[in-house]
Amino acid sequence: MSSLPPLSLSILGVEPLDEFIKEIADFIHHMIISRPDLPGNVEVEAKIGLLRERGGGRLSLPVLVETILTPDSIDCRFESNMTAAQHKHFNTLLNELKISSSQPGYASSSPLDYHHLRLVDSFYPSETNDREKIRVTRDEKSGAVIECMRKIRLGDLNIYSPKRLADWRVSVNLEVPCSHPVGSSTHQRKKDRMSYSHEEFNIDLTQVTSTNQSGTPEILHELELEIARPALLLLTASKRGDMNVPENERNAFDELIRAFVNNARILARNASDSWH
Amino acid sequence: MSSLPPLSLSILGVEPLDEFIKEIADFIHHMIISRPDLPGNVEVEAKIGLLRERGGGRLSLPVLVETILTPDSIDCRFESNMTAAQHKHFNTLLNELKISSSQPGYASSSPLDYHHLRLVDSFYPSETNDREKIRVTRDEKSGAVIECMRKIRLGDLNIYSPKRLADWRVSVNLEVPCSHPVGSSTHQRKKDRMSYSHEEFNIDLTQVTSTNQSGTPEILHELELEIARPALLLLTASKRGDMNVPENERNAFDELIRAFVNNARILARNASDSWH
Repeated sequence: MSSLPPLSLSILGVEPLDEFIKEIADFIHHMIISRPDLPGNVEVEAKIGLLRERGGGRLSLPVLVETILTPDSIDCRFESNMTAAQHKHFNTLLNELKISSSQPGYASSSPLDYHHLRLVDSFYPSETNDREKIRVTRDEKSGAVIECMRKIRLGDLNIYSPKRLADWRVSVNLEVPCSHPVGSSTHQRKKDRMSYSHEEFNIDLTQVTSTNQSGTPEILHELELEIARPALLLLTASKRGDMNVPENERNAFDELIRAFVNNARILARNASDSWH
Repeated sequence: MSSLPPLSLSILGVEPLDEFIKEIADFIHHMIISRPDLPGNVEVEAKIGLLRERGGGRLSLPVLVETILTPDSIDCRFESNMTAAQHKHFNTLLNELKISSSQPGYASSSPLDYHHLRLVDSFYPSETNDREKIRVTRDEKSGAVIECMRKIRLGDLNIYSPKRLADWRVSVNLEVPCSHPVGSSTHQRKKDRMSYSHEEFNIDLTQVTSTNQSGTPEILHELELEIARPALLLLTASKRGDMNVPENERNAFDELIRAFVNNARILARNASDSWH
């Protein structure tokens, strides 16, 4: 007995299904198929931040590893923010990854692309729903309107990650285009955004400067991962598990969500330190 | 856009490390390297059962997926038991798997082997430690002593599995051989055991009939998975992460624990229903 003989993955010869990824895929799929019948894009995003208890401290649960919280079961809120140092750290990591992934002969993955955006969001009350807002996004330099939309929250799942410096949240929203509102905005947010793209995902690293009506500015540092093509998301969701389509189309939604969860985990784990 | 283009596993091109499996591997490794310096075998096992709150009901935590509980943080106990119907169900599944895995041309995994054992355990107080017991195991039919040993509990991890009908527990024990105790036993357990073996693991499905000093019999149905070769376990643990040995030896401990966790998960998920 000098070493371990080759092992099967299990008594069944396969890895057991990943319960965590399936739970998130089931949740997103349910949000998509039960959404309001309105024209618009479904946005699926993961935000990196912290789950905070009512007192303001980080949530603490008696578990050792990353897990999904039961919705509405815990009195906590998700804060989509990080320190300026963490933000700079992610900027460095993503820039290095963009450079290394663009080298000839780099085989691990596709190259990342990159855009620097400076945007201004103005928020207006919605005439149809007190809880919703209308967001007008402009290019900061030219002032040109990029989009006007009403964002309808469909649902969130909070991911508690006790071994890491960050938690994360999966959000599903419906973005409904609308006409430019009249009247004055309630508040504005300036967004200085490094937007990285990789295959079917965008990673937005944003410094947000908010100004409310009292004029006090607040600076937040946000990191978001989103599925880049809402139409592809809906197409794959519509074929999920359909035995009348080829296997690769039937499984495409779950493959997309697997890569989405993998990327969100990699981001949350790297809230400090080098890539791992 | 007719379908999903081939996706990388992540922006780094790899699956992120499985935090759950690494946590269990780190725990077992720590128990092994910090064990008392006594001659004996290290036993690593996973028991399938239920985590119960003090009131007797199943533990309930606000999480949606399988997770590892922080030791000593929750007032609960693990019950290594299942219904007679579940026991029969596992017996059927494992027998079917033994038959299918032994067919010529079966490619998913190695064949299972099988033994039916009828054993009697007698327990004696330890002279050296009030909290430990000495176990004498005999063949029920012949009465021959199979082993005498003192079992020293090193540590446990409880796994809460809210989507399944069963939870599980990883236990690490040190089994120290000893001479046959004198005096009379405090209690006995008759074990009717179907012992399946697959590669480096034993799966023991046991009907246990306990008799205490008052003579009242109690029947339990236990399902345990254990690492079959303690010497191999210690060998792989000693080389874990050692950069002076070849990569396959350096990773062998983690590969062994990965298959152990996969098998424990598959067993816990099949507490009813067909294999999945």
